[in-house]
Amino acid sequence: MKNTFGSSIAVTIFGESHGEEIGVVIDGLSPGIPVDREFINSQLALRRPAGKISTARQEQDEYRIVSGVFEGRTTGTPLCICIPNTQTRSKDYAATRALARPGHADFTANTKYHGFEDYRGGGHFSGRITAGLVAGGAIALTALREKGIVLGTHIARCGGVNDRIFGDLAADVAALQNMPFAVLDESAGVTMRECIEKAAADGDSVGGVLETAVLGMPEGVGEPWFDTLESLLAHALFSIPGIKGVQFGAGFGGADLRGSAYNDPFRMKDGKVITTTNHNGGINGGISNGMPIQFRCAVKPTPSIYKAQKTVDIHRKENADLQIEGRHDPAIIHRARVVVDSVTALVLCDALATHFGTDYFTSPLRTSCFAD
Amino acid sequence: MKNTFGSSIAVTIFGESHGEEIGVVIDGLSPGIPVDREFINSQLALRRPAGKISTARQEQDEYRIVSGVFEGRTTGTPLCICIPNTQTRSKDYAATRALARPGHADFTANTKYHGFEDYRGGGHFSGRITAGLVAGGAIALTALREKGIVLGTHIARCGGVNDRIFGDLAADVAALQNMPFAVLDESAGVTMRECIEKAAADGDSVGGVLETAVLGMPEGVGEPWFDTLESLLAHALFSIPGIKGVQFGAGFGGADLRGSAYNDPFRMKDGKVITTTNHNGGINGGISNGMPIQFRCAVKPTPSIYKAQKTVDIHRKENADLQIEGRHDPAIIHRARVVVDSVTALVLCDALATHFGTDYFTSPLRTSCFAD
Amino acid sequence: MKNTFGSSIAVTIFGESHGEEIGVVIDGLSPGIPVDREFINSQLALRRPAGKISTARQEQDEYRIVSGVFEGRTTGTPLCICIPNTQTRSKDYAATRALARPGHADFTANTKYHGFEDYRGGGHFSGRITAGLVAGGAIALTALREKGIVLGTHIARCGGVNDRIFGDLAADVAALQNMPFAVLDESAGVTMRECIEKAAADGDSVGGVLETAVLGMPEGVGEPWFDTLESLLAHALFSIPGIKGVQFGAGFGGADLRGSAYNDPFRMKDGKVITTTNHNGGINGGISNGMPIQFRCAVKPTPSIYKAQKTVDIHRKENADLQIEGRHDPAIIHRARVVVDSVTALVLCDALATHFGTDYFTSPLRTSCFAD
Amino acid sequence: MKNTFGSSIAVTIFGESHGEEIGVVIDGLSPGIPVDREFINSQLALRRPAGKISTARQEQDEYRIVSGVFEGRTTGTPLCICIPNTQTRSKDYAATRALARPGHADFTANTKYHGFEDYRGGGHFSGRITAGLVAGGAIALTALREKGIVLGTHIARCGGVNDRIFGDLAADVAALQNMPFAVLDESAGVTMRECIEKAAADGDSVGGVLETAVLGMPEGVGEPWFDTLESLLAHALFSIPGIKGVQFGAGFGGADLRGSAYNDPFRMKDGKVITTTNHNGGINGGISNGMPIQFRCAVKPTPSIYKAQKTVDIHRKENADLQIEGRHDPAIIHRARVVVDSVTALVLCDALATHFGTDYFTSPLRTSCFAD
Repeated sequence: MKNTFGSSIAVTIFGESHGEEIGVVIDGLSPGIPVDREFINSQLALRRPAGKISTARQEQDEYRIVSGVFEGRTTGTPLCICIPNTQTRSKDYAATRALARPGHADFTANTKYHGFEDYRGGGHFSGRITAGLVAGGAIALTALREKGIVLGTHIARCGGVNDRIFGDLAADVAALQNMPFAVLDESAGVTMRECIEKAAADGDSVGGVLETAVLGMPEGVGEPWFDTLESLLAHALFSIPGIKGVQFGAGFGGADLRGSAYNDPFRMKDGKVITTTNHNGGINGGISNGMPIQFRCAVKPTPSIYKAQKTVDIHRKENADLQIEGRHDPAIIHRARVVVDSVTALVLCDALATHFGTDYFTSPLRTSCFAD
Repeated sequence: MKNTFGSSIAVTIFGESHGEEIGVVIDGLSPGIPVDREFINSQLALRRPAGKISTARQEQDEYRIVSGVFEGRTTGTPLCICIPNTQTRSKDYAATRALARPGHADFTANTKYHGFEDYRGGGHFSGRITAGLVAGGAIALTALREKGIVLGTHIARCGGVNDRIFGDLAADVAALQNMPFAVLDESAGVTMRECIEKAAADGDSVGGVLETAVLGMPEGVGEPWFDTLESLLAHALFSIPGIKGVQFGAGFGGADLRGSAYNDPFRMKDGKVITTTNHNGGINGGISNGMPIQFRCAVKPTPSIYKAQKTVDIHRKENADLQIEGRHDPAIIHRARVVVDSVTALVLCDALATHFGTDYFTSPLRTSCFAD
Repeated sequence: MKNTFGSSIAVTIFGESHGEEIGVVIDGLSPGIPVDREFINSQLALRRPAGKISTARQEQDEYRIVSGVFEGRTTGTPLCICIPNTQTRSKDYAATRALARPGHADFTANTKYHGFEDYRGGGHFSGRITAGLVAGGAIALTALREKGIVLGTHIARCGGVNDRIFGDLAADVAALQNMPFAVLDESAGVTMRECIEKAAADGDSVGGVLETAVLGMPEGVGEPWFDTLESLLAHALFSIPGIKGVQFGAGFGGADLRGSAYNDPFRMKDGKVITTTNHNGGINGGISNGMPIQFRCAVKPTPSIYKAQKTVDIHRKENADLQIEGRHDPAIIHRARVVVDSVTALVLCDALATHFGTDYFTSPLRTSCFAD
Repeated sequence: MKNTFGSSIAVTIFGESHGEEIGVVIDGLSPGIPVDREFINSQLALRRPAGKISTARQEQDEYRIVSGVFEGRTTGTPLCICIPNTQTRSKDYAATRALARPGHADFTANTKYHGFEDYRGGGHFSGRITAGLVAGGAIALTALREKGIVLGTHIARCGGVNDRIFGDLAADVAALQNMPFAVLDESAGVTMRECIEKAAADGDSVGGVLETAVLGMPEGVGEPWFDTLESLLAHALFSIPGIKGVQFGAGFGGADLRGSAYNDPFRMKDGKVITTTNHNGGINGGISNGMPIQFRCAVKPTPSIYKAQKTVDIHRKENADLQIEGRHDPAIIHRARVVVDSVTALVLCDALATHFGTDYFTSPLRTSCFAD
């Protein structure tokens, strides 16, 4: 399934950077989930470019929900959201069409689609497409919140600067909601932004690391061997452009620990089984254990830079020099974090619906059309 | 799909650590792939415990191919391999059944399967099940080799010791084939083994990092957005017990680079497009670019340790102390590497067959039953 | 996968009868397939209501292709078609909302979606949604035609009247293209239309049988056991509202024959293997055998009739009488046949791409963006 | 997914007629379903050849459950059943290998698998493989029965003779259980058997029609558009060798009715919504409506006949005459009915688990490993 992901709840994306519309179809959502248009707007705003640390392209993301919502709630049938592209400047791309941008999908897409791909602005490979995931993810986040599951992502590292690590998770996750540049330590955020601005001034770009925590996830969710929570989350996260690494819990650092230090001891607390550490990131054997699910994503530096680069002319099959024009982000990590939240929410909804059935998220407020 | 993975070529696994047999069904293999039983044996031998750095359980893995092979070649219909369990000592587990082993799936499996799971030796969650993946993966590796694709994995880090990084990839990958403790630098390997033996002597365990390189992968393979090569590989790799991190190319380290340093410049070489660095690990936009595919997996320390641990009695719902008996590995990283090779091979075969069709691997030696 | 069908080429549908837009996403189409907007229009016209044998609702189906087409050809990335609903008269439905229409999905949808479903005009269960399948199917039909595969469907039976059976298949299939009321025998068509008009005059409706033939299908396509051509076609055909039976070749009638009469003898003809009869409908063992693929679909009479009916009030949980208002079709069989053609084309494209690879339909006219 | 079917509960089959073993893997079964080996045996006995109306090949079907069952109940992890082939006489097939048997998959398999297929006894295309479906289906039938869902199939027509139609469904379905030649009217059964014996005496074969009824199916199950109950059932049923037609409710005959006669009126009965007729076969809009699910399958006459037939030599590419040797069934309809029951049970379990969650069938007797 190329552009569809999920089994009980399946997400299908479509669109190109300079096409007429981009969008998403979410199928399998329980009927009765409230659709909060303000929240969708605020999530889309978090993804939108922000001042001098972002591209100058400003899309208003005036989305339309064209199906799947009736009287303010999900119907249970496919929910399609369309978002028009309005701020395209395709001429920026025509001159350099044959010059594959290093780090981008230009060369591989040309190989795979034999030159029929829409090359403008990266076409279907543009980060623009993530707007659909964010709009749809907002509904998934609402569905999770109604079941007591909340999540948040911060920029754990950017430009070589570390944010502080998660502390009081409930407070930290709450604080991250709706924060335009999501850091736990404001001063770290200031330094990170300076790094981005400096890179921008140099015609260059930076990457970073995002860290996510999910609270309230019920235990027993995940479908080993192949649909473990780690497998499902990693599958979807690696679909986000620029993500080149995913680790759960202690991740790569944990590989240096001995088992006696790494193993998370079980204890009873308030009648519930907990672990006193969380090196496994809330997942044992691919199944949620009731502890917070925690993972990190490595985001590579944005490939579109203004510095001169060496490349090839894929038409003439010869070496060439490339000077990129157009509007580009010196960093996407602050915009990517809402995409990570959205994708995470969609994956968790799917895993929950697989285990608990398609009615899992159905609003308890109404159980028949005449009950209200 | 819980225990089935892949679309064009699908792998289904079954079995428990102390059940009658474990096994694998591989469906969708091109007809005509030679099935080399010696090679399957040698791959299974790489996965088997090795002396004092491994468990004392010694399975001979006397597998039977019960379907899908005729006159020494794949038929194109489902290939099922069964491997009997013969060396089970289930009594080791009965006494501590209620005591969830930290870091294991005991607690989450009990939650998910409501106590009906086969708990002996970890049941379906045992690393034992990977023997089926290795047997099936051997056929996938043969299929790839016939198309000029080879791959190898080394222990890049273990017990805090680094192996040297990949140099001449073709030579290094060739050297890794059939090496029991797969390192590029023999002296690093000696130190790693000492670390493992020391941990074993302490009743403890170690983890590590595996690094894989794939050579000869054709460009244009991978199905964005959701079935990118990174997504497919990570999905399957995170299904291997103990893997808690996956990164491609420069991965987490690359997140500290600027775009001008990270971007891989394209150049022409011998009429072919190459990149002069490979920070993207051979994948742009989720599609292979013709360069070596490179990735790393973080393997957590083996959770079964002989040191006393704190846990809960999931029956009595109370705190408890755990002293594990039985036979366990102080490290699995040297055994896991052939599992990583096998899973990688199966995923790449699937991606290639999706793109090029189900006949992609069909032996060119014979195109009809009467041609030979 | 609820509203997505197919593996190599996947179709996702969305929309409700009285929602803002309905549509379809087709993913996995080879790049380079010409997109003929006139042909899409003419196919949509065949599905549109036609005079007094159809509903009075007249949608213009002014579709927009919002993604996946560039410079007149498919890009290889998801192709989304949106079709606005403009002629909705939702008030027709409000008064009788609680009265489940017999033969419709009103009751089952209410049960499944707990009253959150969009009930207006049948919501997501409306035949209106098939417009998306027809628009997408037109592109699939074009793709098939470029590979020499053509297909056609006629009304084999309606109102108790039989059309003549297929004779010269190539001529018959050609004649059926673009025929508004698709019959091989014009006089049978006249009688059928009279039957429909008479039923309409009585406030009643009729059903019928559609018969399809596919010519030029290559041999060797279909993926037994479970993805046989029969399984894939039947799966998709039974998704079309109103279809209650599907049979291949001699079908139910063939069950009365003896094997010696039923078996299709093989013969050589012009260096090619053919069969001298086609009781198996071009499929042996679930795989195409190179003969025409032939099948029949039973279409039940349209459930929306103006006669008084007995039903229940699903709100009050009591018996009730129902007098339907609104605009309805006394027959849908003449409109359904283009839906059958479309769905058939989409399924065959999927099966072909699975076997021959994702590039199977790629236009031979251009193999890189600079070749033209 | 070629040899895997289902989403929440997935069935994978493997094996060849003359291979070492055939079998099935069922994944996703709720934990705690009792596994009744006697019932599996009795179901396999119904599939086994029976005297002179069947093949002389007598397999004892001494199956082994090699995984997924612990202490007499399903574990929730993959359940694999292996059944050895013991009565193979492969030499019967060697002489006529190149002569494609009309009506069989010999020619299409040779085309698809390029001659690498195991041709002996039809290889993977043999009805022998259905033994795995029957063994697995027995567990699914048990799971359904625990939820109050029962089903049965009778030979509605064979050799031109009709069985009586279903009357008191509960009594009829009960009577069909464990009946070797499943008819409702014993005298019709006698005539049918005479027809089969007469065909056998002529070296010929017969087909027939099977009719199935499912009682107790909860309303609201089925996932339109594409995973309607009709679509899922037809998909799986058309995978059974020899089935060439499937119809629900009134099926093809219903296509001649007017809407006023066909529509099933809703009524309240004992506080439950029922319909007073069941022309829709218990399914509206692809979703179960709580009435019995009823469908018919057309079974073509067995293609293996002893009469001389015309065919081609696929090696020499020339016309040839064929005189089949070996052991063959003059009819399979009486053996196919238990296959239909089994496949139906597996599909319904899958649809129920998709809707109600993976725990739907979990035995209520025990909810943790220590509760008993």
